[in-house]
Amino acid sequence: MAHPKEPNRLQLNDQGRLRHFLTLDGLDRATLTEILDTADSFIEVGARSIKKVPLLRGKTVVNLFFEASTRTRSTFELAAKRLSADVLNLNISTSATSKGESLSDTLQNLEAMASDMFVVRHSQSGAPHFIAESVTPNVSIINAGDGRHAHPTQAMLDMLTIRQHKGAFEGLTVAIVGDILHSRVARSQIRALNTLGVSEVRVIAPNTLLPVDIESLGVSVFSTMKEGLDAVDVIIMLRLQKERMEGALLPSEHEFYELYGLTTEKLEYAKPDSIVMHPGPINRGVEIESAVADGPQSVILNQVTNGIAVRMAVMSMAMSGQTAAISAATPE
Amino acid sequence: MAHPKEPNRLQLNDQGRLRHFLTLDGLDRATLTEILDTADSFIEVGARSIKKVPLLRGKTVVNLFFEASTRTRSTFELAAKRLSADVLNLNISTSATSKGESLSDTLQNLEAMASDMFVVRHSQSGAPHFIAESVTPNVSIINAGDGRHAHPTQAMLDMLTIRQHKGAFEGLTVAIVGDILHSRVARSQIRALNTLGVSEVRVIAPNTLLPVDIESLGVSVFSTMKEGLDAVDVIIMLRLQKERMEGALLPSEHEFYELYGLTTEKLEYAKPDSIVMHPGPINRGVEIESAVADGPQSVILNQVTNGIAVRMAVMSMAMSGQTAAISAATPE
Amino acid sequence: MAHPKEPNRLQLNDQGRLRHFLTLDGLDRATLTEILDTADSFIEVGARSIKKVPLLRGKTVVNLFFEASTRTRSTFELAAKRLSADVLNLNISTSATSKGESLSDTLQNLEAMASDMFVVRHSQSGAPHFIAESVTPNVSIINAGDGRHAHPTQAMLDMLTIRQHKGAFEGLTVAIVGDILHSRVARSQIRALNTLGVSEVRVIAPNTLLPVDIESLGVSVFSTMKEGLDAVDVIIMLRLQKERMEGALLPSEHEFYELYGLTTEKLEYAKPDSIVMHPGPINRGVEIESAVADGPQSVILNQVTNGIAVRMAVMSMAMSGQTAAISAATPE
Repeated sequence: MAHPKEPNRLQLNDQGRLRHFLTLDGLDRATLTEILDTADSFIEVGARSIKKVPLLRGKTVVNLFFEASTRTRSTFELAAKRLSADVLNLNISTSATSKGESLSDTLQNLEAMASDMFVVRHSQSGAPHFIAESVTPNVSIINAGDGRHAHPTQAMLDMLTIRQHKGAFEGLTVAIVGDILHSRVARSQIRALNTLGVSEVRVIAPNTLLPVDIESLGVSVFSTMKEGLDAVDVIIMLRLQKERMEGALLPSEHEFYELYGLTTEKLEYAKPDSIVMHPGPINRGVEIESAVADGPQSVILNQVTNGIAVRMAVMSMAMSGQTAAISAATPE
Repeated sequence: MAHPKEPNRLQLNDQGRLRHFLTLDGLDRATLTEILDTADSFIEVGARSIKKVPLLRGKTVVNLFFEASTRTRSTFELAAKRLSADVLNLNISTSATSKGESLSDTLQNLEAMASDMFVVRHSQSGAPHFIAESVTPNVSIINAGDGRHAHPTQAMLDMLTIRQHKGAFEGLTVAIVGDILHSRVARSQIRALNTLGVSEVRVIAPNTLLPVDIESLGVSVFSTMKEGLDAVDVIIMLRLQKERMEGALLPSEHEFYELYGLTTEKLEYAKPDSIVMHPGPINRGVEIESAVADGPQSVILNQVTNGIAVRMAVMSMAMSGQTAAISAATPE
Repeated sequence: MAHPKEPNRLQLNDQGRLRHFLTLDGLDRATLTEILDTADSFIEVGARSIKKVPLLRGKTVVNLFFEASTRTRSTFELAAKRLSADVLNLNISTSATSKGESLSDTLQNLEAMASDMFVVRHSQSGAPHFIAESVTPNVSIINAGDGRHAHPTQAMLDMLTIRQHKGAFEGLTVAIVGDILHSRVARSQIRALNTLGVSEVRVIAPNTLLPVDIESLGVSVFSTMKEGLDAVDVIIMLRLQKERMEGALLPSEHEFYELYGLTTEKLEYAKPDSIVMHPGPINRGVEIESAVADGPQSVILNQVTNGIAVRMAVMSMAMSGQTAAISAATPE
């Protein structure tokens, strides 16, 4: 499965509004900004005594996880429930397909049950696009991570966190550190940062953890923390995807930490008011020193809070875009 | 466990209304028609923007699955949530009974938690009857499939699908094809079709996949598709229950397909406006050719949609019958 | 992990109201009575047609089970749903920590998702205290059983059951029978009974199933049923925690039943109007004879019903105490 050349043909409706949320590729600055603004309004809901809005009341959201991830599934489940949706959690690897049913048949069945939204996590790049290609107009697809391709809600919660702390994207230098090669998050982040207009996106990694086409994504490549972190505003540490590594691309965790782990010492290369981000779960002492993860420049827990708000934002926007598309298509 | 001779003593209240839903045996045409009419009203709910009615608000529905079935459990879960019930999913095989507790104690505990309805799936024929015998008047039992005995909501969703497409049951010839022997669905379907007044129910199967008492159920038996499908209005394909087969009743999947698989070619024996049904999940190329499953005569996905509506119907009717029975039994 | 010397520093707010519910140690009679009175009001909710109150609407309750217990988890899930909360079930042993994340990081993440309450079950004594020490003011912890230490909601549902049947605690003699050593319930029960003012708490057990410090808890120790049950008002049987036993502390289940199993015969030592309790699941023929478990003096199923009401009570009280504490701490 490969993702299509024109993702927006799929993910935008005829009015140019989101109706699926598959990738940041092709989304313009106005759309990303609208997502961030909508998420900001949901941050306020999370701080209320009654953390619920009726935007998805009577809608059925199915968490279709072909790859287990309790953490990501929980954030989507909470986001959907706070939007008042009914939620059905399906771990597809252990259900229907084990009875020999094809993916396509499973999806058509869920559609026929009048589901309104599938939140899809899959180990294969492009799976959410494939599903979005085939579903009826009454279902919206939200990409919750597909292979090495994208994890667009993670990237958008990172953008929200940067905007909260830095006010704007203009003039910022952002460094992404670690295993770029295996990271679906990094690709989405690079796309979002460039679209939102930062001054410079840097990646800091050993050559073995960089994709071959990396410079074409619009980044500067650094191989040492000293050079790469010099005077940056934002440091995004990636999780070392041990479970994704095939073969011996790394000498050892210890050596990785020596070279690329974010320590108090290395943090001093960055600006004094720089912020430190990590998508979690943290491997303390591998990617990051505990003193930094828990230190005053860390905004890691803000990212988690923002994750709920961003997921509420894209779910409510996609549902609204779906409804508009259906109305437009219905003859008077 | 055997099911009782007079199921209606259990499943109807003193006013003759459903208060459990265990089997179609003994239910008269008026009751089946009421289920179909009620389901029709819920079809409309599934098409609304807010797919929710408050009929079971504040009620607790427990999905008691002694046999795993993600698909069936999901449809009951969605049906209950769209009726606004609180839902508790219990996979009994993996919980209390593993601590050495008896089934009866588990059930009494769930009753004591003020549960209002148990949706029961069990590999033993008669288990839902057994449970209905023992529960308090405050709990309704819905049979979600028991052994080889019955799967009455599946049969009723099939009836709803037939009525939607054919308008009425009078004058119809219906063929049920495949593994009748191991199918709890087939028994329920035959019962329902005869009660609702079709002209003829046919079964088409090799002798090895027919129960010995089959003709007593009111069917004509055919051993070839050519004869059995001749001029029928409705074709119901059964799922080849591979996991239920013990021993070698079938030569091979390939040979089965040659003889009983529904292909474009064999479909021509039936009336041109005949409809094709299958309970899912489909084994493409075993029971049915893909071109037929996805073709213009297939109503397989309508069956799925109708499944939610029928489950909402029997759940709301049983709850209403339970409430009426309790009021009638309460002294002024 | 050990529990702190002053649990109330943690579990009461500055106004002396519950804001966590960790242990009965240190809670005074007025507080226990308030829990029982609040639970009484929820008993009435469980008998209503619509079993729901909006006290926790828009709140997020996370069932954090580090030790599997379908039964206990189900009662908390139902209690939370009847209070209108959104519920997230997490079986922690199988999720984030398997990715190498520390407990503390998992908790901080859940807090950052704006969770309002963690219901914690853990095999280590003191784990809920440890968690309560570290969480933000916006989260309340409810202890759903920790190691051998405490199971305070179980003890309070037992107190509610005793008060329902005996009217008051004054003048009562209560015997607790069985494996005191491995029972987290027994410790909580002894504490509650003494605080609520019963005349005498007895424990009946072989020496091998008694903790060394047992008399310091304020109980009389008996080694035979004949002496221990003499003229008691309440008999609390404990579950034989087979899965907790290490080594051969018991000769055999059969011998245990001979000596300490509650039979019709031994029940006659107690007062004629004595009540029989058991936390479930029951091992019939090991701790208790079926005729007694199902007999007229048994209130075992009342305990289950009361379990939902007590859990609703402590959850709503802790949430209210949390809110009051946050308001008090907020500058005008």
